[in-house]
Amino acid sequence: MAEFDLIARLQEIICIPAGRDSRSCVVGIGDDGAVLDVPSGHHLVVTTDTLVAGVHFPVSSAAAAIGYKALAVNLSDLAAMGADPAWFFMALTLPCEDQEWLDSFANGMARMASRARILLAGGDVTRGPLSVTITALGLVAKGRALVRSGAQPGDLIVISGRPGAAALALQKLNSGERPTASDSAALEFPSPRLGLGRLLHGIATSCIDISDGLAADLGHILKQSGCGAVIELNRLPRPASFDALSSEEGWQLQLAGGDDYELCFTLAPESEAALPGLSRSAEVELTVIGAITEDTQLVFSAPGGEHYEPGILGYQHFGGQEAGSR
Amino acid sequence: MAEFDLIARLQEIICIPAGRDSRSCVVGIGDDGAVLDVPSGHHLVVTTDTLVAGVHFPVSSAAAAIGYKALAVNLSDLAAMGADPAWFFMALTLPCEDQEWLDSFANGMARMASRARILLAGGDVTRGPLSVTITALGLVAKGRALVRSGAQPGDLIVISGRPGAAALALQKLNSGERPTASDSAALEFPSPRLGLGRLLHGIATSCIDISDGLAADLGHILKQSGCGAVIELNRLPRPASFDALSSEEGWQLQLAGGDDYELCFTLAPESEAALPGLSRSAEVELTVIGAITEDTQLVFSAPGGEHYEPGILGYQHFGGQEAGSR
Repeated sequence: MAEFDLIARLQEIICIPAGRDSRSCVVGIGDDGAVLDVPSGHHLVVTTDTLVAGVHFPVSSAAAAIGYKALAVNLSDLAAMGADPAWFFMALTLPCEDQEWLDSFANGMARMASRARILLAGGDVTRGPLSVTITALGLVAKGRALVRSGAQPGDLIVISGRPGAAALALQKLNSGERPTASDSAALEFPSPRLGLGRLLHGIATSCIDISDGLAADLGHILKQSGCGAVIELNRLPRPASFDALSSEEGWQLQLAGGDDYELCFTLAPESEAALPGLSRSAEVELTVIGAITEDTQLVFSAPGGEHYEPGILGYQHFGGQEAGSR
Repeated sequence: MAEFDLIARLQEIICIPAGRDSRSCVVGIGDDGAVLDVPSGHHLVVTTDTLVAGVHFPVSSAAAAIGYKALAVNLSDLAAMGADPAWFFMALTLPCEDQEWLDSFANGMARMASRARILLAGGDVTRGPLSVTITALGLVAKGRALVRSGAQPGDLIVISGRPGAAALALQKLNSGERPTASDSAALEFPSPRLGLGRLLHGIATSCIDISDGLAADLGHILKQSGCGAVIELNRLPRPASFDALSSEEGWQLQLAGGDDYELCFTLAPESEAALPGLSRSAEVELTVIGAITEDTQLVFSAPGGEHYEPGILGYQHFGGQEAGSR
């Protein structure tokens, strides 16, 4: 099958979501490039992320989960910027042509695309070791993008959901155990917090998604905002499957695990009253887990008052330590 | 080295080109996504292309050539749309960390980026088999994008430069021979025809870049425009290194080879007089090689009048034949 036909087949499955004005995509798949109409008064938000077989997912992963997650991880970045998903581009590298695999992959991706109302506007299909690179484009009203650099001493630190379930599923898979269905779903079919991200303008002073673990990703906020933080470990909301784990095992997964696509954001203490309404509107649990400090240390405070040091800090593709503020 | 440091290092080398207003990149590398300001009155043009080691370039290729070409092939697509390069995003998958390799790669990419005045606005570095995916974003005044679908019967078919040199270099490399320096340069450091593309609005009725060979790519124009074409083979401009080849060997390379990033466009016969001025302004040779016909056949007419059938038609990643109009 020719590359063009592969893309057309994907387009057929990952159809234009109802409600998105297709006129904003002036020229779509099938030309040298897509021509897009960015509405006035908006900034464009762009993010790109690659998933490589054997690195980001087991080679044996279900095709539908790969397709779903490749898009989801990019949408999580758009959520962290407060952007509304608009268009995406997919570069798919496949070792061989397998129509059944490709249909499952496309169906998984379509599930995520239709939930997020995002349009596949172009792509490239090449032969080689399995990997997927998505570039996602979102829109945000000018001046309303959420960034990492705005945290202020005294701000509260809030986390969405109950991170750690995906990290636990991954840990179990790596040691040959079977994760719970719910943890598997968190790992394979994460829910990017797009609804929450959209509502954070005017409330959050900084925001990030914690795909590399809370410690590493909060570290980015601290570095770029020039401040530190204290996290109270007993305030971290634990997923149901953590009941069998010790406190420390749980902290380790939540602080240093990866693949949990929750948002971490900061807000001024006077905005705390907005959290319950925000949680209801975004349909996601929100928990204050600590506060921003003036010094540049990131401190994890255990219930007894002692400081806890997580082991490996987040996922580093090249084995180094993040040059963060810790 | 952490992913963030790798991207920062690349950013250092692939610096912001002087003259591009950096304010249009409101938030750059180092957040969950880039925030870009698309100027009013413009459409955004987006294209994505992957180069995989061992598929699109030999594993032994110089790092500088890989970096240069990964960007160049995307810029060629922007050129074919008549777009002005603005920002690009790079997803780089590397088997290991090698600072020297990375610096050469980045320097090669910087050479292309600075010539095209395009800004690296984000990226993702992952571990895995070597491949590079670039997503390039360009700008074009609204309604001015060049598309594949506008060719009309009677239109002339024009080609830029002298395609075939890169295809010959590749053929020689594949058979263990040494290509000429000039052909190697055409293969490793192609020049996307950005200057030409920008000038084609109001002149070209359709346009494409012929990265997959003239036959396959002209086939896309014909399919999307619903017409056919006659190409007069003796009008195909031959690269200097073709002197040692028979006519037929040359045609085969020009029609069915790949990796020559020239533009092929159509224009109404009354616009032919504009070609010499256009050629001077864009500093590239332009040659009329045939005409668009009403039927949907693509005919290659040899000097004696007989029809020539090229062998393999263009590069197909999955071995099929392009479902074109031929």
